[in-house]
Amino acid sequence: MPETIRTIDAFNRRMMISRMRGRTIGLVPTMGALHAGHAALMERARAETQFVVTTLFVNPTQFNEARDLDAYPRTFEADLEACERAGVDVLFAPEAAEMYPREPLTTVEVSGLDEGLCGARRPGHFRGVATVVAKLFLITQPDYAYFGEKDFQQLAIVRRMVADLSFPIEVVGVETVREPDGLALSSRNRLLTPEQRRAAPAIFAGLQEAASLAKSGERSASALRRAALARIEAEAELEVEYVDVVDRETLRPLEQVDAEARIAAAVRAGSVRLIDNAALVPG
Amino acid sequence: MPETIRTIDAFNRRMMISRMRGRTIGLVPTMGALHAGHAALMERARAETQFVVTTLFVNPTQFNEARDLDAYPRTFEADLEACERAGVDVLFAPEAAEMYPREPLTTVEVSGLDEGLCGARRPGHFRGVATVVAKLFLITQPDYAYFGEKDFQQLAIVRRMVADLSFPIEVVGVETVREPDGLALSSRNRLLTPEQRRAAPAIFAGLQEAASLAKSGERSASALRRAALARIEAEAELEVEYVDVVDRETLRPLEQVDAEARIAAAVRAGSVRLIDNAALVPG
Repeated sequence: MPETIRTIDAFNRRMMISRMRGRTIGLVPTMGALHAGHAALMERARAETQFVVTTLFVNPTQFNEARDLDAYPRTFEADLEACERAGVDVLFAPEAAEMYPREPLTTVEVSGLDEGLCGARRPGHFRGVATVVAKLFLITQPDYAYFGEKDFQQLAIVRRMVADLSFPIEVVGVETVREPDGLALSSRNRLLTPEQRRAAPAIFAGLQEAASLAKSGERSASALRRAALARIEAEAELEVEYVDVVDRETLRPLEQVDAEARIAAAVRAGSVRLIDNAALVPG
Repeated sequence: MPETIRTIDAFNRRMMISRMRGRTIGLVPTMGALHAGHAALMERARAETQFVVTTLFVNPTQFNEARDLDAYPRTFEADLEACERAGVDVLFAPEAAEMYPREPLTTVEVSGLDEGLCGARRPGHFRGVATVVAKLFLITQPDYAYFGEKDFQQLAIVRRMVADLSFPIEVVGVETVREPDGLALSSRNRLLTPEQRRAAPAIFAGLQEAASLAKSGERSASALRRAALARIEAEAELEVEYVDVVDRETLRPLEQVDAEARIAAAVRAGSVRLIDNAALVPG
């Protein structure tokens, strides 16, 4: 089993040896409830770096709804086993009181990138994400940090933060892992009812329809959006929050897809919020 | 002469060797126009660490008035000599285009601490300070960072940012260096006319009167403020922006001085803005 460490001090002591040996450190920040998507990140880190740290912290400052925080799955023993299988060296799993011993006054914000898509619907969410990722970067001091492409806006924000503040870290985006029916793996999937679970693959199916249309020459963002929406909204269990066609880096909404772009969606199935995205490569 | 380095890449290459040797690194961040106050910081770093880095960067994002930025003194050759005398190993002096190759979207903010005192009069100033200090910390990765107590609010904000985000850095506050007549050394002092220069020591004299009153039993913050104000406002060349009695850590205004507190002032002499502060130790 990987060593589980609960405090920043103990983590620093543990890492001092590995750092002094000049080992490259790979970080996989998670909120636990690990699934095959996280496993892909940890395996990639294992393959590319000499010392793999997974963090498990359900960060309260990035939840804008208390019920979402309360409902977030906690599966520590299974998470530890997933880390073991992936060859993780250290699991850093602090409590909230360790990360925030007093009310934090410091926030990190990436303006512009946090305004659209999920940022518009979850006020303060990406400020919480950027701040806790900065703190986890400073605690773990990795050479490489691995994030899933499923959280596309988060990945863009972390990349920009790293560039703007000159974190000496390479951010690696890893392709989304999917169920055989296309549903993106998510810790929230286990909260779905059987009916919602049956409907949920329509999200990625809709995004793929848009991607196919783009490949066969459709350039109009609104036509691509409509195609995705039609597919998703055909499922009565699903309620669309947004489907947007955006620039890959700036995340600004596009009217025309003239170069590779991204289509991103957030959809509610009951109280469960699911997100996904896909590349749009104009044909 | 210390080695002058202009780019982040070159700096990283230079530091790799020292870091691998496990040397402790001391950082003195400056905006140049170095004086004996900076020398005290650099000498302290020299005494306490094995590799001393001074940064020289007139950070545009912390100036809220373009004329203040333009007027800020630039004295590179003299600065280099001051670094040499203090035994600095590397002077990192990037251009703005190196620090901000594109418009930075990421900001670091320490809310609460940035609202009163200078923060109330210089909107965005401390966001610019916290952000550039975070970036300089990430580039230089020091073990110790030295800041003058003259910029008391800045010191409190940097301390809090370091604690909140878990920067692995010890922040060292160094006592303000003064002219024989008490005026706190500042790069801006050289912008004073002879008349303004003659009047300027009244700032510290006023703060000291308040400190003496506190020592002899006066607990009322407004009485202490009034004493300082009377002394400063007796000088026709000086226009008070604020004189405030605040908690040392939270920087919140106090009504009563029951434990060690701080009295801080900002005063204008013509277009030159001078700040200073002093401890209030209740007798």
